[in-house]
Amino acid sequence: MITSTANQKVKRLVTLKKKRKARDEEQIFLAEGLRMFREVPGDMLRELYVSEAFYEKERELVDRKAGEAGVFPEVFSEQVFSHVSDTRTPQGVLCVVRRREEMSCEELLRPDQEGRKPLLMVLDNLQDPGNLGTIVRTGEGAGVTGIFLSRDCVDLYNPKTIRSTMGSIYRMPCLYVDDLPELLREMKKKKIQTYAAHLEGRTDYDREDYTGGCAFLIGNEGNGLRREVAELADTYIRIPMEGEVESLNAAIAATVLMFEAGRQRRRK
Amino acid sequence: MITSTANQKVKRLVTLKKKRKARDEEQIFLAEGLRMFREVPGDMLRELYVSEAFYEKERELVDRKAGEAGVFPEVFSEQVFSHVSDTRTPQGVLCVVRRREEMSCEELLRPDQEGRKPLLMVLDNLQDPGNLGTIVRTGEGAGVTGIFLSRDCVDLYNPKTIRSTMGSIYRMPCLYVDDLPELLREMKKKKIQTYAAHLEGRTDYDREDYTGGCAFLIGNEGNGLRREVAELADTYIRIPMEGEVESLNAAIAATVLMFEAGRQRRRK
Repeated sequence: MITSTANQKVKRLVTLKKKRKARDEEQIFLAEGLRMFREVPGDMLRELYVSEAFYEKERELVDRKAGEAGVFPEVFSEQVFSHVSDTRTPQGVLCVVRRREEMSCEELLRPDQEGRKPLLMVLDNLQDPGNLGTIVRTGEGAGVTGIFLSRDCVDLYNPKTIRSTMGSIYRMPCLYVDDLPELLREMKKKKIQTYAAHLEGRTDYDREDYTGGCAFLIGNEGNGLRREVAELADTYIRIPMEGEVESLNAAIAATVLMFEAGRQRRRK
Repeated sequence: MITSTANQKVKRLVTLKKKRKARDEEQIFLAEGLRMFREVPGDMLRELYVSEAFYEKERELVDRKAGEAGVFPEVFSEQVFSHVSDTRTPQGVLCVVRRREEMSCEELLRPDQEGRKPLLMVLDNLQDPGNLGTIVRTGEGAGVTGIFLSRDCVDLYNPKTIRSTMGSIYRMPCLYVDDLPELLREMKKKKIQTYAAHLEGRTDYDREDYTGGCAFLIGNEGNGLRREVAELADTYIRIPMEGEVESLNAAIAATVLMFEAGRQRRRK
């Protein structure tokens, strides 16, 4: 059992928690908590760390998952575990997880393995880790087939983002792109309809047909979509609102659009 | 200008920030930031505190709003303002706000002033301040006419909740109730259809008609609706989900339901 925070493994985990660059170099992310641990696919689990108490309580599960993945669970004292944890009340299990193999842009613009027409999200400079994680989680539930992120979006592998995906990070294809305008032109060629969620939209979101291949563009929390991105969308849509509400939270607006698309596709 | 955190006014604000009981006794809440300040109705603004820098920059706005409300803006040094603020990077304006007059349960079960049939949310033991605030904000946008909260829900007047309402707290009728089952029986008498969002629901949420008076029941983040509450609902509905997503965040589930009701009501 490791009982010192000066241990090299412990120091490395703290670096991985804090530094995007370190996570990117190793092409991994950290996943904490029982639920994230339960759902991690065996072939993605690279390393496994548990607190003494967690190991005592969940020994069977830990040993089985570790066996499946061919890794050895390392035990930390409670104090050391707290030190590497990103939460105030750690559950006592932390996984170092290999990232999904990236799908190519071309693959994401085609129907997926289940034959679903593309239902894509394009996130332009999204900054809140909770919003991003919620879009990944809710997107999986709504039937989103892939998520594109502009290079300046918040880190998908930020521990807060990972936590709010509630496991969907293991399954949702996500791809950072350098050039959103280029992506939108590519979508046009592939006949994927692009919709910009925009306060200046004239079309109510629920008047459009999302049963074909389509993509929703969601902008930054404070400033919305960049003009050069929004301009390339086929249609500006708006979510009609009552009262004095000017705008919705980015994850909430995304939810309304994704579930309207899901609803229409089920009805078809 | 007040420059000491030992000042009695400063101490009182800190107590109001931290203690629900103190806020309840005075029947007020604290609203921070430019947006919350801009939107506060004059007749609800009781006291106004600004940082020196904010007052310098926004003097005209501050004096106008203070004049409308008949209050005197008190200026704090930056350090004192940070001390009373609930945020890491304070914007420099803090309002003590009188709560809306509570509408009676009976009023909330009738069409509202604008003639809208009741579209109600019933929150059972909701615990996350961000979720609650988001439901208030999104609810206003979707056309919700009122929100009922079980007595054990998180405090509606928690600074975090207030912040996430983005101003909707000034306008949305909210009512804590001691006895949700009694409320649901009352709804039944008034022919308000009640829908429990439930993982065991058999009816897809988008197969129901929400154009009449209706209420959505949303449960606790971890445990869902209490059985004795869920049992009294007319219909269990579910949000069909793809992939391996088991459930949605409470505010996200509420959003899907509220905007489906809004969509149907616009189409009618």
